[in-house]
Amino acid sequence: MDIKYFFSTLKSLIALKSVSSDINCKDQILKSAEWLKNYFITNGYSSKLYQLAEANPLVFAESKVSDMAKTVLIYGHYDVAAADDQSGWISDPFTLTERENKLYARGIADDKGQFFIHLSAISKLITEKNLKVNVKIILEGNEEVENPHFEDFIKTHKQLLAADLVLISDGPGVGGLPTIEASLRAGFDLTLIYKTTNTPLHIGIYGGGIPNAAHEMMLILSKLINENNEIKIPGFYNDVDIVKVNEKESCLKLVPNESVFIKSLGLKALLLKPGNSFYLQTGLQPTIQVTGFKSGHIDDGYGATVPNLAEVKIDVQLVKSQQPEKIISLIKDFIKAETPTYISYDLSISDSGIPVKVDISKPIFVKIQKLIKAAYGKEAYIRYVGGSIPVVAVFQKILNTEPLVLSLANEDSNEHGPNENLNIDIINKAFKFSYLFFSSEVF
Amino acid sequence: MDIKYFFSTLKSLIALKSVSSDINCKDQILKSAEWLKNYFITNGYSSKLYQLAEANPLVFAESKVSDMAKTVLIYGHYDVAAADDQSGWISDPFTLTERENKLYARGIADDKGQFFIHLSAISKLITEKNLKVNVKIILEGNEEVENPHFEDFIKTHKQLLAADLVLISDGPGVGGLPTIEASLRAGFDLTLIYKTTNTPLHIGIYGGGIPNAAHEMMLILSKLINENNEIKIPGFYNDVDIVKVNEKESCLKLVPNESVFIKSLGLKALLLKPGNSFYLQTGLQPTIQVTGFKSGHIDDGYGATVPNLAEVKIDVQLVKSQQPEKIISLIKDFIKAETPTYISYDLSISDSGIPVKVDISKPIFVKIQKLIKAAYGKEAYIRYVGGSIPVVAVFQKILNTEPLVLSLANEDSNEHGPNENLNIDIINKAFKFSYLFFSSEVF
Repeated sequence: MDIKYFFSTLKSLIALKSVSSDINCKDQILKSAEWLKNYFITNGYSSKLYQLAEANPLVFAESKVSDMAKTVLIYGHYDVAAADDQSGWISDPFTLTERENKLYARGIADDKGQFFIHLSAISKLITEKNLKVNVKIILEGNEEVENPHFEDFIKTHKQLLAADLVLISDGPGVGGLPTIEASLRAGFDLTLIYKTTNTPLHIGIYGGGIPNAAHEMMLILSKLINENNEIKIPGFYNDVDIVKVNEKESCLKLVPNESVFIKSLGLKALLLKPGNSFYLQTGLQPTIQVTGFKSGHIDDGYGATVPNLAEVKIDVQLVKSQQPEKIISLIKDFIKAETPTYISYDLSISDSGIPVKVDISKPIFVKIQKLIKAAYGKEAYIRYVGGSIPVVAVFQKILNTEPLVLSLANEDSNEHGPNENLNIDIINKAFKFSYLFFSSEVF
Repeated sequence: MDIKYFFSTLKSLIALKSVSSDINCKDQILKSAEWLKNYFITNGYSSKLYQLAEANPLVFAESKVSDMAKTVLIYGHYDVAAADDQSGWISDPFTLTERENKLYARGIADDKGQFFIHLSAISKLITEKNLKVNVKIILEGNEEVENPHFEDFIKTHKQLLAADLVLISDGPGVGGLPTIEASLRAGFDLTLIYKTTNTPLHIGIYGGGIPNAAHEMMLILSKLINENNEIKIPGFYNDVDIVKVNEKESCLKLVPNESVFIKSLGLKALLLKPGNSFYLQTGLQPTIQVTGFKSGHIDDGYGATVPNLAEVKIDVQLVKSQQPEKIISLIKDFIKAETPTYISYDLSISDSGIPVKVDISKPIFVKIQKLIKAAYGKEAYIRYVGGSIPVVAVFQKILNTEPLVLSLANEDSNEHGPNENLNIDIINKAFKFSYLFFSSEVF
């Protein structure tokens, strides 16, 4: 690709401070959406802005090859994180700057630069009349903040967005190579409150003779999760998707040196079920983790009462094939069965996300790996991610479309931090991949 | 006793607002000490005030019969709790008022009225030349607040305070009868902090693959204390004083109806080791209780990280024959053995108190019960108390003197609350007992 063209074109989009968390940037947000619509129309796409109530405009664009061709939907976001603390920046965050083979600016990696690599490849193919797949593009302006309307928009625009594959390029790759995020855990949070009586009672006079809410809570938690982080709820693992040999191998590749990895996290050890690697356990196995616990006197000094209340907050991450509703039901049964009758309890549960896993042995992923090898000289890393990217699950749930989450940025792109950057070699290789992808019959 | 004389004499001491927590009452505190010294001298005792640095004066008085007679040391306190919220009081808190067979005022039960019952009896016996035991009296002005100097005073005045028995009348009895507090647990507090790394890590990405400080803490705690509140530290119960048959019986008498008792505490159940009664377990068995626990995100909403820190505060109550130093050493060994090597921990321990138990089958207690029966028509309840009264342990430790903690007040005397009161029948019976006690050869 002509990096000068990439630089000069993107520079004006980067200059628009589309910080979605900052109400003062509303004008720049709207200008960004207009900029993108104009870009699409100028480059041979059809394009339209969708104004959502209480959210920033969605930019939609399309370039159709034929009714017979497969369709790829690209999702990206044109809003960026704030860059308030400019003290860490060597150059102005909103002035695209080239320095030592890198482009620096807020949004260059997250996500303006990444989606613009695909746009550059597709625009070139439109000009060359060599586009082989129908392309749809949806660019959001609320990714860095909550967008309560995006899911509704997808629901009401199923036909508009219908596609065979959703391509999302966001986040960093590993070791100069892109990564395919082949799975994403998702789940829900819960709060469990134990109550023994209305007031705490004197620790000396009553301690040891009456239930202690902190003890009772820790006893049930110790039955819930064992020393290996294994969950003891009957049936919890029943539906977990079986981990394939190639998935196990992909997980191992991501941690070539475990002791270096442990040190990099500031830990003394991982806590893995014997036989599991880190990414296998965190990416392909469900987990239940306490994220908060409080009971009794938690300030300085010592309280002199038996705690009558204990509250635990728990995060549940599920993997493919686990149904949140079923797991919630198992958890409710477990708490009911294991809570002594002298305890009153209250359980509240947050909305649940849906875990995602794709089968990377499918022909399309095999072809994509070949194209990546052609562009980068090596195949992409496959990553099984413990966390969730809600939009992926939303696309899969509503559109029933296979997701390809392909993180293109360099590992040190420092998204959300100062001196966010994209390596120019990475841009060139990613462009090469994208050009090959949209000019091939990958399906 | 002539209750009119009791009322008219005590009225002027009650009127002095000796609230030790209120710096504005300093003058009334000093006047109270002077009042007491004058009372003693007027009534045939020798008396002296001891001015302590940073504490209110100690009033000492003595009435000696002979070198051959045994000596009883009475401990009491002339300071009182605040009565700031006067809205609950029917009459002025500092005006001694008679109403429906009760005397009402702040301090009438805690503790001016209770020690004055003994003073009235002894004064009468001095006048009648019928006192049979040497009497020493020490009245403190800092019982309701901390008195860092009282223990030092006892240490440096061992000869002055030397006695065969320390008599303390404070707190309420049970069901219109006095209670003998035959044991007091005591111990220490500890704080244990677990740390896995310097920062919390993303719950989705790392959850289930790394140690979670909250989980680790709850796992060790679940090994420390089981469902019956039994302590699993090896050797913890080794030195516990064996509970005698008469002690078991005394404990049972205090809870004639367990379900009523449970309801009165707002509980649905007690948590007793099978075979133990409430007072046997809380008064004569040691216990380890969590009084506070915090880890991770404890505010509203949900945190999204694996907690790297967990802090637990624990109260340890010991019983007679257990040595705090030995128990601390067992706890340290347990924590070291049960904490995984990938956890850093910090343990801090407060100063420890000393548990007290008296043998109520000794002749002196048998004689005291006879005198109580003569005065009240029934023997005193024997109570084995879970909490500590530090002064009792201090007297026992430094003076090596048997304590007689005899709570004389009616159960509904409402100490520290509004309308604190003493029942006139109780005063008369308690006076009768005290008169018998100091005119008998009880030793």
